[in-house]
Amino acid sequence: MRDKDADQRSFIRLSPDVELGDGVRIFSFVNAYGCKIDDGAQIGAFVEIQRGAVIGKRCKISSHTFICEGVTIEDECFVGHGVMFINDRHPAAVNPDGSLKGKDDWTCESTVVRKRANIGSGAVIMCGIEIGEGALVGAGAVVTKNVPAGATVAGVPARVIPRG
Amino acid sequence: MRDKDADQRSFIRLSPDVELGDGVRIFSFVNAYGCKIDDGAQIGAFVEIQRGAVIGKRCKISSHTFICEGVTIEDECFVGHGVMFINDRHPAAVNPDGSLKGKDDWTCESTVVRKRANIGSGAVIMCGIEIGEGALVGAGAVVTKNVPAGATVAGVPARVIPRG
Amino acid sequence: MRDKDADQRSFIRLSPDVELGDGVRIFSFVNAYGCKIDDGAQIGAFVEIQRGAVIGKRCKISSHTFICEGVTIEDECFVGHGVMFINDRHPAAVNPDGSLKGKDDWTCESTVVRKRANIGSGAVIMCGIEIGEGALVGAGAVVTKNVPAGATVAGVPARVIPRG
Repeated sequence: MRDKDADQRSFIRLSPDVELGDGVRIFSFVNAYGCKIDDGAQIGAFVEIQRGAVIGKRCKISSHTFICEGVTIEDECFVGHGVMFINDRHPAAVNPDGSLKGKDDWTCESTVVRKRANIGSGAVIMCGIEIGEGALVGAGAVVTKNVPAGATVAGVPARVIPRG
Repeated sequence: MRDKDADQRSFIRLSPDVELGDGVRIFSFVNAYGCKIDDGAQIGAFVEIQRGAVIGKRCKISSHTFICEGVTIEDECFVGHGVMFINDRHPAAVNPDGSLKGKDDWTCESTVVRKRANIGSGAVIMCGIEIGEGALVGAGAVVTKNVPAGATVAGVPARVIPRG
Repeated sequence: MRDKDADQRSFIRLSPDVELGDGVRIFSFVNAYGCKIDDGAQIGAFVEIQRGAVIGKRCKISSHTFICEGVTIEDECFVGHGVMFINDRHPAAVNPDGSLKGKDDWTCESTVVRKRANIGSGAVIMCGIEIGEGALVGAGAVVTKNVPAGATVAGVPARVIPRG
């Protein structure tokens, strides 16, 4: 297996319009375009970062995570593995007339993750959300409303719980 | 980083037996084999589509989603990011005698997603399910039974909720 | 589309320090380093396996799954699609002084999946967990404590349920 198929290339797909800070580390199988990744951030394998997204300084974005247009992650945040951000409250493939939805056929709702917030693996973050500074989102949570600064939330839908 | 490792190739792995309609768009890091992808469909990054799956016209399949054998997605459906379909109710790596399970050692249970249904990001769809026409599956839902046409379901396990 | 972009390469990234048993099958877009994958195991597309992880004989690790340092999966286990393991109870990108967390700034909590256990797609497995021999973790479950041998668990957080 190893001789024939294994490969030491990185398979990173970084569009020329990505704004990269100093000391950014990008791991294998990453797809990023039109976004800003600030100084010292780390981006794990199988991550997609879309146009217009912002990753702050010294953030860690873990493998298998999707960060869409409209998402701003402030400095020093941790985003776990397999985290899905959302920017469309009424997703659909087509307009009522059956034409493919284009740029002008939906509203991008922004999400911001404030400084030093931590998001556990497998979390899903609905659109139009603010996750407060230093907040903690438990693994597997589905976040449907704002998370206060310093709070811990968990569950489906996510609710505030006493921090353990 | 950019000079050494970044790459503008698409890293698409499309088996010669994939039946592609007109105007299909396939994004980077896709793995598809033995499936049918009909006219105007869009397939996002890091998606796997297995043998025998059918993606209808003008569907949008978002990044990080897994579509297995036995899944039929009718026309104009939206499937969000990180959605996992399932086709085996009793998954196991081996038979009771310890031999690896092969083609004849399990039953593929089919799932159908009817026209214009929308499935939110992070949803998990159990096998043998019908998701009705125009239905909406909330982000992060775990769908364990049929979803009526036009209904909205959410939660773990998913239950019908009044559409907001 | 096919002529220009489709590719029959496997895009497998297997570090030279991966210890591979006999008859291992590794599918496309896999990222593995410093781990052991024992005889007859199968590793699906878009899987990352980190340094120090162990995959037992004849295991099946399905697509989009993340297996981290500290995870040992014993022989003949099934791990579904999009399963996220965790090894850090207090994840963070930086230390309190704002420096990036390094190797000595966190504690890896080990998880073991005992022989012939089966983990459903979309499950999230917290750190420091033992999943007992022959146990079954339902699709989409968030496992926060040990699972007894032979038990079935499901839900968020996962609880023992009568096996159906």
